[in-house]
Amino acid sequence: MIIIMDRGVTEEQIGNVVSRIRDSGLDANVSRGTERTVIGAIGDERKLDPEMFNSLSGVEYAMHIVKQYKIVSRESHAADTVIDISGVPLGGKQIQVIAGPCSVETQEQMDVAAKHVLDAGCRLMRGGAFKPRTSPYAFQGKGVEGLDMFEKAAGRHGLPIVTELMDVRMLDTFLERGVDVIQIGTRNMQNFDLLKEVGKVSTPVILKRGMSATVSEWLMSAEYIAAGGNHNIIFCERGVRTFENAYRNMLDVTAIPVLKKETHLPVIIDPSHAGGKAWMVPALSRAAIAAGADGLLVEMHPNPCEAWCDADQALNPQELKDLMGVLGQIAQALGREI
Amino acid sequence: MIIIMDRGVTEEQIGNVVSRIRDSGLDANVSRGTERTVIGAIGDERKLDPEMFNSLSGVEYAMHIVKQYKIVSRESHAADTVIDISGVPLGGKQIQVIAGPCSVETQEQMDVAAKHVLDAGCRLMRGGAFKPRTSPYAFQGKGVEGLDMFEKAAGRHGLPIVTELMDVRMLDTFLERGVDVIQIGTRNMQNFDLLKEVGKVSTPVILKRGMSATVSEWLMSAEYIAAGGNHNIIFCERGVRTFENAYRNMLDVTAIPVLKKETHLPVIIDPSHAGGKAWMVPALSRAAIAAGADGLLVEMHPNPCEAWCDADQALNPQELKDLMGVLGQIAQALGREI
Amino acid sequence: MIIIMDRGVTEEQIGNVVSRIRDSGLDANVSRGTERTVIGAIGDERKLDPEMFNSLSGVEYAMHIVKQYKIVSRESHAADTVIDISGVPLGGKQIQVIAGPCSVETQEQMDVAAKHVLDAGCRLMRGGAFKPRTSPYAFQGKGVEGLDMFEKAAGRHGLPIVTELMDVRMLDTFLERGVDVIQIGTRNMQNFDLLKEVGKVSTPVILKRGMSATVSEWLMSAEYIAAGGNHNIIFCERGVRTFENAYRNMLDVTAIPVLKKETHLPVIIDPSHAGGKAWMVPALSRAAIAAGADGLLVEMHPNPCEAWCDADQALNPQELKDLMGVLGQIAQALGREI
Amino acid sequence: MIIIMDRGVTEEQIGNVVSRIRDSGLDANVSRGTERTVIGAIGDERKLDPEMFNSLSGVEYAMHIVKQYKIVSRESHAADTVIDISGVPLGGKQIQVIAGPCSVETQEQMDVAAKHVLDAGCRLMRGGAFKPRTSPYAFQGKGVEGLDMFEKAAGRHGLPIVTELMDVRMLDTFLERGVDVIQIGTRNMQNFDLLKEVGKVSTPVILKRGMSATVSEWLMSAEYIAAGGNHNIIFCERGVRTFENAYRNMLDVTAIPVLKKETHLPVIIDPSHAGGKAWMVPALSRAAIAAGADGLLVEMHPNPCEAWCDADQALNPQELKDLMGVLGQIAQALGREI
Repeated sequence: MIIIMDRGVTEEQIGNVVSRIRDSGLDANVSRGTERTVIGAIGDERKLDPEMFNSLSGVEYAMHIVKQYKIVSRESHAADTVIDISGVPLGGKQIQVIAGPCSVETQEQMDVAAKHVLDAGCRLMRGGAFKPRTSPYAFQGKGVEGLDMFEKAAGRHGLPIVTELMDVRMLDTFLERGVDVIQIGTRNMQNFDLLKEVGKVSTPVILKRGMSATVSEWLMSAEYIAAGGNHNIIFCERGVRTFENAYRNMLDVTAIPVLKKETHLPVIIDPSHAGGKAWMVPALSRAAIAAGADGLLVEMHPNPCEAWCDADQALNPQELKDLMGVLGQIAQALGREI
Repeated sequence: MIIIMDRGVTEEQIGNVVSRIRDSGLDANVSRGTERTVIGAIGDERKLDPEMFNSLSGVEYAMHIVKQYKIVSRESHAADTVIDISGVPLGGKQIQVIAGPCSVETQEQMDVAAKHVLDAGCRLMRGGAFKPRTSPYAFQGKGVEGLDMFEKAAGRHGLPIVTELMDVRMLDTFLERGVDVIQIGTRNMQNFDLLKEVGKVSTPVILKRGMSATVSEWLMSAEYIAAGGNHNIIFCERGVRTFENAYRNMLDVTAIPVLKKETHLPVIIDPSHAGGKAWMVPALSRAAIAAGADGLLVEMHPNPCEAWCDADQALNPQELKDLMGVLGQIAQALGREI
Repeated sequence: MIIIMDRGVTEEQIGNVVSRIRDSGLDANVSRGTERTVIGAIGDERKLDPEMFNSLSGVEYAMHIVKQYKIVSRESHAADTVIDISGVPLGGKQIQVIAGPCSVETQEQMDVAAKHVLDAGCRLMRGGAFKPRTSPYAFQGKGVEGLDMFEKAAGRHGLPIVTELMDVRMLDTFLERGVDVIQIGTRNMQNFDLLKEVGKVSTPVILKRGMSATVSEWLMSAEYIAAGGNHNIIFCERGVRTFENAYRNMLDVTAIPVLKKETHLPVIIDPSHAGGKAWMVPALSRAAIAAGADGLLVEMHPNPCEAWCDADQALNPQELKDLMGVLGQIAQALGREI
Repeated sequence: MIIIMDRGVTEEQIGNVVSRIRDSGLDANVSRGTERTVIGAIGDERKLDPEMFNSLSGVEYAMHIVKQYKIVSRESHAADTVIDISGVPLGGKQIQVIAGPCSVETQEQMDVAAKHVLDAGCRLMRGGAFKPRTSPYAFQGKGVEGLDMFEKAAGRHGLPIVTELMDVRMLDTFLERGVDVIQIGTRNMQNFDLLKEVGKVSTPVILKRGMSATVSEWLMSAEYIAAGGNHNIIFCERGVRTFENAYRNMLDVTAIPVLKKETHLPVIIDPSHAGGKAWMVPALSRAAIAAGADGLLVEMHPNPCEAWCDADQALNPQELKDLMGVLGQIAQALGREI
């Protein structure tokens, strides 16, 4: 922690800051410059909070110099973590494309979708049974019934499944049904009670970035899960909110190298929710893999025009197949495979 | 709903759009311009979704022309709604300043705080027993014990209380304790399961705006609560996230006249979380009341330097008293009172 | 300047940083913490740039601890600066409302407008002869002819004028015509050659904030003007660009107390461009004055429905008069006058 | 143009809108829905402006349905435009990487840099003689002297040059010196007088996106240049401003497919200014090419640690060479070459 003092600071004010640092069990280093006096706290600064100093008189501002996340940080664990999803590795040399429809609609739709996911060469399937919708009057998902349809369809094709959990009270049902990966959606990235609950189980968790969450806040949300004991965390960037309204969200590819530097955990991208249009998906998918992502979460629907939700952002089966082809070549250019 | 067709649209494509509109029970109006053909859907467009058309060939884009919120809209209820909070009216001529500490710390702190809230002329008290914190290692609130301390202190001074609910499983406890106003925090504005639950009770709800929620999304979240039957909803603007990092959030005063036009429900402002610094609070509070807000949610701590949370944004008791004085004069200029 | 070193920093790397600081004529203070070594540069840190250190090995990041603006800073000049605009003071106890049409259209329109500006109790008039328009096909202003019409109309009513300069080659014309205040528009806040030129004259300058400029960048742009010798600078906040599209821009009232703390120069607000709608103007104007602004720049048109530009954001003469009334009462509550 | 009327609109109000449309020489189509009446203008809607209607009573809002840019639009010119830069094609199958230092420092530095640019396989060189800097006290570039150094160094190696023009008064000097590509920087994207001037010459122009410019505003700025007669325009995305402060700007890769759909002109990316750190450049460059960019504008310095400006974002010569290798493989996966 570094505390920058005001220009005309008094010795008494400096003394107060030093005392507060020592009261917390750390040491203080006072550096008197020509324009400002700077006080450094020596020791485990995670015990301190800038607020403890910002309200003292004579303090201009206080700031941490060390990142606040521990378990998820690359500093604490240098090697890449490879997560085992019911036998499918995520985070290693092999890139994983998780495909499937936005929402579970019927048993037939899921059966056909699962077949196409497998045919395209994907090893994991996505689908939503509980849907977060901006409007209370929009389709809210098929619920537990949808979960059962999804399990049945994916099971027949040997595909582990990824599905979103919105309500803490539904976690047991997810575990009973054997959901392979729990997805925490963008609107729940800072639903701390939900994070704490999934931190208590061992099922892998895909943690989507909040609509306008900083990378640092996102890492802290992952730390909530990790602090509970569950270290099987996958970051998923899905576009952030900006001033631009020509597309639904702005895919933040810079987050990929930045996360790869800050954390040892896998990073995937959702190109479908980012752009919001199927025709943008191939370009965004290629960019993500080229930038170093470990995988994708892509919407594919057997018949996009008939989809009940996000119809205009789903690829059709052939488009998914074509995309897998070009991604394979890009993966190769980076020494990876798909 | 209006559907703008591509430049070289065919008659067959126009026919498909018209059929889809009619299949939903509405009529279609086709207007052929020199550059674009535009198709309008005549009837209750809430049955339609732009996605139903965006994925059809020949469609450039589709858009709603009517707002998607109903119960909370000014169109559905022209007069201002005044909410009765255990005898204190919010939304009418009288402006309400809800004051108190960020978090409940001790019984003594809450007793002293309650006295100062009353002395300053405020009629409602705030305080957090469950705290949403970015870091899992930060103080998470005193929980149910804190709720009891708060109830006791406020009760002695006859002040109804406002406190934040984060977890659906805690709602019954809030109701048993007689919490007067349930606060839904910024991170939970789109926690739809939580919204649905508070929609089933009749306790007034303060719905804080999400960090980067549009006014339209915010109104839709209120509609979730209203659709459940609870119409006692208060909007609370608390600053939004922007590119500016000289202050924690940017207070959006424009949202005040816009909400007043769009909804009949009360609108209050949280100047403390907006700026993040106590010295900004008076200016932001004055701006909010001058712009037409129905009240404020302000942090006041008996001894800000010793606060356990957000120490640098709390007013001290004297600052709150001074603020109430100047706000009274501004209220008068607008034909209101405090 | 503070330089935070990487976790596993070597003595050689520390030595390199210390050398580079000393080469620039400053002293270095090395503080070795348990997690990080921090090096402080003692002396005039404006000679240093974080980039000088960020590219050295072993450096995590470097940052200034002192603000980079000097002449415009409150530190360099504690008292409020009152600018004399051809006899009208701006920045003191008296609040100034600068009103007039978006663009100069005809001599008659300007004559009528000037009369209404004076009748409403305003002492300064605005109007655009050169208009920055997003589209090359939109009306670009009447140019020098418009400037002459404006001068004539305002002159008859004894009103000093404010008008926008977009092109350095037009500065002499502005000076010859006796423009009282040169306005630098939002799109030119970082047109550094233009800033340098207006820095060489003594005519007061209104410097509008860039659409997404931070307060710090804005102060640095003012420093460009001040560094040339012209200290007659007025900051004008006009709304910033955010994710919200329910209104054209988001008025940043927090910038008012922040600027008042950082600089001794006057701060005014443009409520017309902020919201983009006439019906929002009164609420935003009241908020601005209540938050401590020294004045407003408001669009008023004798007949808004017939305006050639920004028709929907101009007040009509009666609305301006009514606004002046309520602003007077708010000013009084703050110990000011209008 | 579509005009959405208020809920309780009167026949007289509808009549006024229709009259105003007809007065501009277009026809009107009135569609009366159950909730709203919508009026469409039939004809060349570029003659109309939403403001003409928004200020009329009974109008909720008016909006264009056709894009406002013409010459630069893909609608007006279906095939990709390939720009000839002194013999080097940009916009075709071959991808161009424009490399060189942020700023011209010495003749030797430029000579060495030019050699490395050529060695890496690049065909165009960048370098700044006039530097836009946030602070008036920072290095402002070597000016005309720097331009001469740059010309000499690049000329020896047969490399056409790209350099930034900030001041209209310097255009003749650029033309005399034979600058091959004029760069318009991010801060000048809406410096309309500068755009008009470069629109009068035939030298290719790289138009950088404004810090928070929408794609639509950017296309309109290009239209300013094109309307003057210069159709040799190259779009350059360089990161936009968002809430995220972990990196300097956020590279917007989604803009690549969107621009490719909207315009026939080439699109390149500046990965150096986007991330602001050299270690991010390879990932961002790969993402850009994979997403379909026609080229890059990359900073390379013979000795980054000694650079006078933006030292921490420049690649060294070996890093540039390595990057060219992997980009070649990605280009191949897309059926292109480098």
